[in-house]
Amino acid sequence: MSFDTTIERRGTHCVKWDGMESIYGVPAETGISMWVADMDFATAPVVNQAVKAMADHGVYGYFGDESEYRAAIQWWMKERHDWEIDPAHIFTTHGLVNGTAMCVDAFTAPGDGVILFTPVYHAFARVIKAAGRTVVECQMVQENGRYRMDFDKYDTQMTGSEKMIMLCSPHNPGGTVWSRAELEQVAAFAKRHDLVLVSDEIHHDLVMPDHKHTVMANIDGIADRLVMMTATTKTFNIAGSHSGNVIIADPVLREKFAGRMAAFGLSPNSFGLFMATAAYSPEGAAWVDGLNAYLDGNRRLFDEAVNKIPGLKSMPLEATYLAWVDFADTGMTREEFTKRVEQGAGIAANHGPTFGTGGDSFLRFNIATPRARVIEACDRLAEAFKDLQ
Amino acid sequence: MSFDTTIERRGTHCVKWDGMESIYGVPAETGISMWVADMDFATAPVVNQAVKAMADHGVYGYFGDESEYRAAIQWWMKERHDWEIDPAHIFTTHGLVNGTAMCVDAFTAPGDGVILFTPVYHAFARVIKAAGRTVVECQMVQENGRYRMDFDKYDTQMTGSEKMIMLCSPHNPGGTVWSRAELEQVAAFAKRHDLVLVSDEIHHDLVMPDHKHTVMANIDGIADRLVMMTATTKTFNIAGSHSGNVIIADPVLREKFAGRMAAFGLSPNSFGLFMATAAYSPEGAAWVDGLNAYLDGNRRLFDEAVNKIPGLKSMPLEATYLAWVDFADTGMTREEFTKRVEQGAGIAANHGPTFGTGGDSFLRFNIATPRARVIEACDRLAEAFKDLQ
Repeated sequence: MSFDTTIERRGTHCVKWDGMESIYGVPAETGISMWVADMDFATAPVVNQAVKAMADHGVYGYFGDESEYRAAIQWWMKERHDWEIDPAHIFTTHGLVNGTAMCVDAFTAPGDGVILFTPVYHAFARVIKAAGRTVVECQMVQENGRYRMDFDKYDTQMTGSEKMIMLCSPHNPGGTVWSRAELEQVAAFAKRHDLVLVSDEIHHDLVMPDHKHTVMANIDGIADRLVMMTATTKTFNIAGSHSGNVIIADPVLREKFAGRMAAFGLSPNSFGLFMATAAYSPEGAAWVDGLNAYLDGNRRLFDEAVNKIPGLKSMPLEATYLAWVDFADTGMTREEFTKRVEQGAGIAANHGPTFGTGGDSFLRFNIATPRARVIEACDRLAEAFKDLQ
Repeated sequence: MSFDTTIERRGTHCVKWDGMESIYGVPAETGISMWVADMDFATAPVVNQAVKAMADHGVYGYFGDESEYRAAIQWWMKERHDWEIDPAHIFTTHGLVNGTAMCVDAFTAPGDGVILFTPVYHAFARVIKAAGRTVVECQMVQENGRYRMDFDKYDTQMTGSEKMIMLCSPHNPGGTVWSRAELEQVAAFAKRHDLVLVSDEIHHDLVMPDHKHTVMANIDGIADRLVMMTATTKTFNIAGSHSGNVIIADPVLREKFAGRMAAFGLSPNSFGLFMATAAYSPEGAAWVDGLNAYLDGNRRLFDEAVNKIPGLKSMPLEATYLAWVDFADTGMTREEFTKRVEQGAGIAANHGPTFGTGGDSFLRFNIATPRARVIEACDRLAEAFKDLQ
């Protein structure tokens, strides 16, 4: 297994590479795609083998007996996150955008407020608004090169119409791994304002070697208002399988959620089930360890190179492969620095404002790609901003 | 390609074979599974090749550019069903149980009535009830060995709270291909009572050689209240991919539906997209022609053998691979004839009452299996009821 291998993704119905030119105007042939949050690596061999076994069998009928799948999830959460779960508490949604939407539907009513700590993953706001709920932005502050939540300020913002928090843990973008103390503050805030707390931990496996993620479920006294969201899709680069897990220990919340799953006729697709069962295994774990080591190398290289460019500041990644770069100190308008990145460096990166308030001066760069490409991207950025040197 | 090939499905997380013993008490080793509506055949080679190509590539990221997929659907509907569709009218749901649920959600409110012509596919009632709507059963009558709808009677049943019809066309169970005249009656009924008409045509490709299916979209004057549902999953035996299409020509209905798709964060999984694009092709069409010829042979054989048993009557299949057998004339209780089939013949078949009013004296047998197994099942049924000879 080598993460250095370059796999051609252009012409493979890959939105990240094939959508780069139409969306960002970055040339398909020469551009570097660093936007969509999937990786340019092949999935773990053990996961790919599961798909090959399906193709060898050739019959793709209805799946039966999820006990092995649920046991694999249970094993993974205990082994990797020191988190004990009951297999009966697991739901499988059609990915975690759908998982988020199902939480919004199950635990809030039209008009209710849903709290986001911004800037944050853009799909949250999209589904909250599409469901006729209100996005309540609690803007984070930057402190010592990472994000911090300011609960004193948020307390004054609350109106009583807020019903739910969507927490992103680890945080996307920014790559912040929340400390136990910070998670306790989030939990206390949820209790203080009687909010359901949804903890989206889709990136919890992708943590840099010098950091330790704590699952929200291991915070005391929050279980009766907590909904956990996890997935194999980011960890193993199988987003196309559209499978996510919503794990709910509280019986009241679980029953509400189960009712809405039934009303929407949601049951898992067999590809996601077979792939997850294979992924959450010792072989899968070894692959993830190798991946994290590789990503750690990429982020060190990227941060060092980007931070050398005067006016650019890459928030040190504690988790995820999504580097969050602040262009504020260039003194340039958003149009200007974006144009330099897209037209000058030929790089497609996510625009900061899509992540909500606080994202204006940022671009998000996906560094889950062979290292040679990260180096090339860094060289191009240095060149595009060389007049600042 | 040979449909005679026996493929072992036990121990493959196949609900049809692996759930047979726990659900019906039919022994896993010696039983014959004829319940769940998937086939014991490998999918079309062109579809399987699409999965193999994905595994060869090994990167399962986010899918981009659905134009080829939509063009394939458009081509298929024109080529196979003489139906012109606009690719922009296509939604992809997480299978058609989810598609049904999304229609219920988009076009009705809690408490509203949704009409089913019973007996009919059991999942309809399940999602309607789970969504807090009311199932309105309009029972069909048997006439000349097929089902008929009795609109004079249904007119008197309407209370004004009915908002939607779920039509199953061709009909499951029963395998009825509705004539153009019958479809016009359904359309007139929908107009008379101001109902949205959802036409679930998941079986529209699986029509016996001596019958011709008419898509509801080709009935005049119904477009402004019509929602079409189609899928590759039954046709190509890829139910595990959980992908279905909801096709809506009317702009008002389409906008409502699009809003709910966005609110539920639904977008297609890449397996379903790649498989459907491969399936809806000339190679896929040739495979389906071969499949239908094979199923036609199976149903002739099954019907002939079953109808020889005094008291048993198999409704002649015009479409689908789901034989609907009436045990009424045996004079036995439901418990008695079911026990003879399950314990005597060792066959798992769907119980009639799950399909709603009118299904009590029936069992549904799935004949999409190698012919030798159909013959074996017929022999066992003859033996189990031999005292009636």
